[in-house]
Amino acid sequence: MASRPDDHEVLALGDVRLQMGATLREAKLAYKTYGTLDENRSNAIVYPTWYSGRHWENEWLIGEGMALDPSRYFIVVPNMLGNGLSSSPSNTPPPYDRGRFPKVTVLDNVTAQHRLVTEHFGIEQLELVTGWSMGAGQTYQWAVSYPEMVKRILPFCGSSKTSEHNIVFLEGVRVALTADDAWKHGWYDAQPTKGLRAMARVYAGWGFSQAFYWNQLYREMGYSSLEDFLVGFWEGFFLDDRDANDLLTMLWTWQNGDIGRTPGFDGDHVKALESIEARAIVMPAEKDLYFPPEDEEYAVRHMSRTEAELRPIPGVWGHFAGGGVNPIDTTFIDEALKELLAT
Amino acid sequence: MASRPDDHEVLALGDVRLQMGATLREAKLAYKTYGTLDENRSNAIVYPTWYSGRHWENEWLIGEGMALDPSRYFIVVPNMLGNGLSSSPSNTPPPYDRGRFPKVTVLDNVTAQHRLVTEHFGIEQLELVTGWSMGAGQTYQWAVSYPEMVKRILPFCGSSKTSEHNIVFLEGVRVALTADDAWKHGWYDAQPTKGLRAMARVYAGWGFSQAFYWNQLYREMGYSSLEDFLVGFWEGFFLDDRDANDLLTMLWTWQNGDIGRTPGFDGDHVKALESIEARAIVMPAEKDLYFPPEDEEYAVRHMSRTEAELRPIPGVWGHFAGGGVNPIDTTFIDEALKELLAT
Repeated sequence: MASRPDDHEVLALGDVRLQMGATLREAKLAYKTYGTLDENRSNAIVYPTWYSGRHWENEWLIGEGMALDPSRYFIVVPNMLGNGLSSSPSNTPPPYDRGRFPKVTVLDNVTAQHRLVTEHFGIEQLELVTGWSMGAGQTYQWAVSYPEMVKRILPFCGSSKTSEHNIVFLEGVRVALTADDAWKHGWYDAQPTKGLRAMARVYAGWGFSQAFYWNQLYREMGYSSLEDFLVGFWEGFFLDDRDANDLLTMLWTWQNGDIGRTPGFDGDHVKALESIEARAIVMPAEKDLYFPPEDEEYAVRHMSRTEAELRPIPGVWGHFAGGGVNPIDTTFIDEALKELLAT
Repeated sequence: MASRPDDHEVLALGDVRLQMGATLREAKLAYKTYGTLDENRSNAIVYPTWYSGRHWENEWLIGEGMALDPSRYFIVVPNMLGNGLSSSPSNTPPPYDRGRFPKVTVLDNVTAQHRLVTEHFGIEQLELVTGWSMGAGQTYQWAVSYPEMVKRILPFCGSSKTSEHNIVFLEGVRVALTADDAWKHGWYDAQPTKGLRAMARVYAGWGFSQAFYWNQLYREMGYSSLEDFLVGFWEGFFLDDRDANDLLTMLWTWQNGDIGRTPGFDGDHVKALESIEARAIVMPAEKDLYFPPEDEEYAVRHMSRTEAELRPIPGVWGHFAGGGVNPIDTTFIDEALKELLAT
């Protein structure tokens, strides 16, 4: 998964006024498209990235014969602000660089993506918005911000508002990274690898379920022991060309996710859920430890304006049921996408 | 909960050969007793401490009218090795002090406790062994090591073998503490408080369930906000006269808990479970995130030699259902203890 800096396009956003007040000058939105936009511009799908993910790490759900089929749909994968490809602490010039990068919200992300889709591609309607984890959060935001534009949504393993427990889980991740003195409050000379490895180990217990570890399913992924999995998968994950400030920027975005903070809803999360018009299949993973199915059941209960179905992904892979690592889960998600797109 | 260094007795153990090979010279076992040993020495209960707990932090389950009634029973609360009162990195003289303190197992703890009970008190039979969390692990170890001696056990929110997921959770706790440069591999000048606060935040997401946070039950505990809970309860917990090396010693004990490693069982955990003769009520908490009920269901299924009942503690308090913070859970545990003691 080495970095592929030239494998995408970049939209120059100009000076972007962020929701929290700062101005991100000469902001950039990195994206990649798959397939061809048809003449009527009626076959577009938006599929945002997740925490620390890059567009190529979304590609497992795109392919010939799959729901997200590039021979049929025009699939736009926008990279989240802060992920190192779109404007991020690691690639922004002073004065808003590194430890000074401004707070970015989910709404900021979706506003930028909306400009890409409308101003750049001239698309007026989306067949679908879908995404995993923080990508699910952006999916909900699309449905709330642009109800007239989004026909269908399929958020998986994510939520429309970051729960308090999820915030606490992320606090553990954050403090493990920042406990490393080498972090220097963002002004590090080299990546604080001790902290990155620490956050990886904190994350490891959350990413997969208790039963996943009980059954040693990391062996199916090719790891030879528990420690091999912790080093090879988890530490490798966070050392793979990821930047500490970038990770902290996206973590803040995640902790502060809440469609209720969309202008017009006055902080009312339920009211925002009630406003959703897109047809929805909502897919938590049965044993997801930080996006538990109960929370999404609550969300679906309040999506009263549309047809919204709760369809948990069964099994023991936890949050990573939506990460493309288990073929059975991938098929389950893909089939739901096909079903939703057929309506 | 300030330290009470004089509120207990200390048994001099002499030179103790530990399971992993080191010799802990002039080892000490700190303990406190509640109630009076009767003439026949037939009313004794052992109630070991938990991760970082001290004997006074067990007292919520002891009292007039409760199952553990000092007017009826002689209750012995031995402090775990490494907890700062019994032999620990923080109170052992060189050369086995601080960063050189040896690895201690659950078996080492129970062996020492057995000497206290038999050699010091002359007790030949125990009415009950019970304990929370790592105290539950010691409870199982008692039943396996001394089947002829232990009549009943009630392990709550713990296990007879630390599961792989539990090991990973503890890895997150460990690396958050040790990511702090001030830790200096155990040779710190002052407590590495940044690391202690970090481990506290990592722990916070695990100690209580998702639903506990969703329902903001920390407000029932007197905390005014999520952040107030994280600082006031969690950071306060690990800063309360706790020592980093002590915490790491107990963490290793926990990660390596396994009754199958008792001599004679050749690493066979199931065989060890099958050997248990004590009548048992096994009480996981319904939403415990690191000792999930499934694991204890597995244990009970293999306790074929005795009457063992699985009785999960209902509700959303997670692991801390067994920590004495929620009166409803305390009553539930107390009633099971009464029932078990009446058999």
